Amino acid sequence: MVMKKVILSNMGKQTEYADSCDWKAPKIEHKREKAKAQKSTIYKHKGNFKWSGVKTEKYKHNSRGWSAIVRNVLIGDHGETCKFHLRYFEIQPNGYSSLERHNHEHVVVCIRGKGKVLMGEKFYTIKYLDTIYIAPNTVHQLSNPYDEPFGFFCIVNAKRDKPKEVRSKNKKK
Amino acid sequence: MVMKKVILSNMGKQTEYADSCDWKAPKIEHKREKAKAQKSTIYKHKGNFKWSGVKTEKYKHNSRGWSAIVRNVLIGDHGETCKFHLRYFEIQPNGYSSLERHNHEHVVVCIRGKGKVLMGEKFYTIKYLDTIYIAPNTVHQLSNPYDEPFGFFCIVNAKRDKPKEVRSKNKKK
Repeated sequence: MVMKKVILSNMGKQTEYADSCDWKAPKIEHKREKAKAQKSTIYKHKGNFKWSGVKTEKYKHNSRGWSAIVRNVLIGDHGETCKFHLRYFEIQPNGYSSLERHNHEHVVVCIRGKGKVLMGEKFYTIKYLDTIYIAPNTVHQLSNPYDEPFGFFCIVNAKRDKPKEVRSKNKKK
Repeated sequence: MVMKKVILSNMGKQTEYADSCDWKAPKIEHKREKAKAQKSTIYKHKGNFKWSGVKTEKYKHNSRGWSAIVRNVLIGDHGETCKFHLRYFEIQPNGYSSLERHNHEHVVVCIRGKGKVLMGEKFYTIKYLDTIYIAPNTVHQLSNPYDEPFGFFCIVNAKRDKPKEVRSKNKKK
């Protein structure tokens, strides 16, 4: 994991953070972002689980315990002021997310294919529109042992703690 | 509109609120609810846009400017501590939600059929997986002028202001 120290000198604050996972260091709020946030917007579904105005990004930049997964931030990167972010993740066959835990809760809704979720010590199969609440500090991992892509919305608090990666004990299935 | 006065004597607080819309007075937190919140849960999709453990409820109790719409609270009524609620609303043909505005933001994702959304002065058609960000204080209304049910997720802040109903000037389409 790469540690970064950022000094937000223009705000008179000093913030230290680590790049990781499902987590981003808080952004400096610019006036333009605030203005943008006031504008209602439609992110049209272009088909194939892509949306206009939403880019497909790398799942994480500075960690390794994941494979064949991408993220799309639908709500959260356009200067919105709501207390949550909405993301769409997609895992290709044999891919998986990090095995991790954190204090913030996850809400996951499967919208493409099917997949597995590990919560605590148990694996569950999740299918179309199954909705999962992952409680604080629950070790969890999403994976795709099937032949088709597995896609899901994941909603999280906008302000959230940094995930802690957990060492695998053959968790992924 | 029916006004209710609630005295939370066991917490030494007095709270006054109005029953309305898309809004609920803050709940008294019981220990049992807090314990429940710590438990990861899967709300299985039973088919036909119904989920196990999630009941279909009346859209609103004390207002009239809506028709043929129901709500299902997937996340928010089970003692979760996250800063957002996830609900699924469904509007039957010719139905519509309240014409309203409020300070909190709405995020809407269409998952069944198609519908219309009024935002400000403009109407937009929304279809499968189209995702809408409704900015603070935007007058809005969702409606279904089509032949099939129109269903959508709506994500909101857990703590939010009470919607203000707006008088219609032939807004619904």
